[in-house]
Amino acid sequence: TPPHHVAVLPGDGIGPEISKVAVALLKQAGQKEGVDFEFTEAAIGGAAIDATGSPLPEETLQICRQSDAVLLAAIGGYKWDQLPPEQRPERGLLGLRAGLGTFANLRPAVVLPHLAEASTLKREVVEGVDIMIVRELVGGIYFGQPRGFSTNEQGHKIGFNTMVYSEPEVERIAHVAFQLAQKRQGRLCSVEKSNVLEVSMLWKEVVSRVGEQYPDVELSHMYVDNAAMQIIRNPKSFDTIVTGNIFGDILSDAASMLTGSLGMLPSASTSDDGPGIFEPVHGSAPDIAGQDVANPLAMVLSAAMMCRYGLDLPQIAEHLENAVSAALDAGYRTGDLHTPGMQRVGCSEMGDVLTRYL
Amino acid sequence: TPPHHVAVLPGDGIGPEISKVAVALLKQAGQKEGVDFEFTEAAIGGAAIDATGSPLPEETLQICRQSDAVLLAAIGGYKWDQLPPEQRPERGLLGLRAGLGTFANLRPAVVLPHLAEASTLKREVVEGVDIMIVRELVGGIYFGQPRGFSTNEQGHKIGFNTMVYSEPEVERIAHVAFQLAQKRQGRLCSVEKSNVLEVSMLWKEVVSRVGEQYPDVELSHMYVDNAAMQIIRNPKSFDTIVTGNIFGDILSDAASMLTGSLGMLPSASTSDDGPGIFEPVHGSAPDIAGQDVANPLAMVLSAAMMCRYGLDLPQIAEHLENAVSAALDAGYRTGDLHTPGMQRVGCSEMGDVLTRYL
Ligand SMILES: CC(C)[C@H](C(=O)O)[C@@H](O)C(=O)O
Ligand SMILES: CC(C)[C@H](C(=O)O)[C@@H](O)C(=O)O
Repeated sequence: TPPHHVAVLPGDGIGPEISKVAVALLKQAGQKEGVDFEFTEAAIGGAAIDATGSPLPEETLQICRQSDAVLLAAIGGYKWDQLPPEQRPERGLLGLRAGLGTFANLRPAVVLPHLAEASTLKREVVEGVDIMIVRELVGGIYFGQPRGFSTNEQGHKIGFNTMVYSEPEVERIAHVAFQLAQKRQGRLCSVEKSNVLEVSMLWKEVVSRVGEQYPDVELSHMYVDNAAMQIIRNPKSFDTIVTGNIFGDILSDAASMLTGSLGMLPSASTSDDGPGIFEPVHGSAPDIAGQDVANPLAMVLSAAMMCRYGLDLPQIAEHLENAVSAALDAGYRTGDLHTPGMQRVGCSEMGDVLTRYL
Repeated sequence: TPPHHVAVLPGDGIGPEISKVAVALLKQAGQKEGVDFEFTEAAIGGAAIDATGSPLPEETLQICRQSDAVLLAAIGGYKWDQLPPEQRPERGLLGLRAGLGTFANLRPAVVLPHLAEASTLKREVVEGVDIMIVRELVGGIYFGQPRGFSTNEQGHKIGFNTMVYSEPEVERIAHVAFQLAQKRQGRLCSVEKSNVLEVSMLWKEVVSRVGEQYPDVELSHMYVDNAAMQIIRNPKSFDTIVTGNIFGDILSDAASMLTGSLGMLPSASTSDDGPGIFEPVHGSAPDIAGQDVANPLAMVLSAAMMCRYGLDLPQIAEHLENAVSAALDAGYRTGDLHTPGMQRVGCSEMGDVLTRYL
């Protein structure tokens, strides 16, 4: 079988450290299963700014386009915070999403039994939580035109953005969400603000219409403010959630807190045809970069999502996920998750542990 | 002294029951202090739709404009959910906010020691939480133009809204927030999404500039996704928050969950000159309407906020707040807050208890 081409984008901060762990594990799991990976590294974010002046060099986009999947670590850092917005690391990420058309961002919030205590919510509230947030990623207010700065009739400076969705944009993300819900508990909650916004009325209408093709999925609708409450009040009531770009940004970060451990959360961003982007939900953590103390597990689980959703290699995904479970079972924890009685390890050490359990 | 004119808008669902309790208490506290209230009832929301066809009859707006403060209970219900959006109860509320220009919405999230256990978050995380969210209420994406439905270049139907802020709009809400922060712990966190949105860049710039006039207030900036996380992860880190309309809608509902009891949360919406609107954060709860089981405490605390922020009657505000504390201390609870060992009471019974403790 031909090799699987993976573009690796270590990015900034702890990115390079955690990438190394994930790539080593992928290689090892590949050997075990007779699967060949070919990794090509490319620069993004602050590292790319320093090297080329751009947060997303054309070469990086080309490498990603020609790959079967993109494994991205994290971008950003204080160093680039003073640059004008168009030149900041985040723009590299947004450009990559748009450039690859990865419209469906899947963000699971699963509370692992080992870590239920790490949450600020009561154990009985979060134990067993398994939410999949499907966030539209290349439309909505993030990319809507017109946008910018101007002067209003009174001569005052204004800043403005447009939250816009078209029918096909909502349709395609709705299909992804309904199909995921089918493979999960069969319940889909569409989140919007249709009591105020026209863009949300269209969203609700289109999701409802697409839902007629999925009679086996139970569809409900919820306003975004209520969803933010219910995620805290009764998170187990959710199975799959589908929502727009900015609401998904906010709600998925809120949901991530149920798990108490950002360091454990992977994400997948997929398109209809081209390569997907697989990345941890956490950031580049510049304050602990280079100290070999970062938690590589979200990155390893992102590599697992890549194998499952991007490369159709579910057996490799399972190997990685099982190794993570085994390491947690055995009591290994990086600093972010450490509690008394557990075995504290650094980033590369955690990599060694995973290698052993693979 | 001349009487204080209060427009009372009972609205829908449990609105009339809880209004009755609050008005009775205001009268009683007024008598005690030699303060005269004059109450004028007016229709809004579903009740107004049924009576006049409009969720905000012109007469209601007139009565509110001529009053010193507006005490609003709650609007909406299943009955009106099928109406076209422009005719729904919510439009009455949005129209009232715009009509009175109440741009500053204050939403305290205070965890009362009596009720810390009611939260889904761990006691040690929420105990002592005292957050004031200052939400811009008559601008942003709720009211931005252009908005509506259209067809894009590919001939597809689109829905769109505009998130827009002008410099003076941000300035006036920033001043309110800084002045509140001064009276609180002196820390203000401005929440936006300036790594993506131009409207947020302007927001951040203007808030920072206004901040120079308040050197005694410590200003910080946070992205909205991170704020949604921190409210769950470390709510005690916040003192005062200032943010735009939709972000405030979402974050204040999330923060309300820290308290575990929507039934306790008041809000105030004020303008620069005219009457403010004072209302509980909870909705009209149509499922329990008319059963005399609703919790009137958020409504009573909204009346207290009205006295403090709207009518400059801090002594009356204190009477009401003390009565609420005393009733909770004595173990009286409506059904939503009831736990074993407490004395369960209905809505009007809770009113009687408050009357006794006043
Ligand atoms: C870094 C930022 C632009 C990005 C976003 O808002 O999408 C991040 O918050 C995320 O959720 O991946
Ligand atoms: C009812 C609705 C229009 C309203 C809003 O979104 O402002 C409500 O959620 C609120 O927060 O007061």
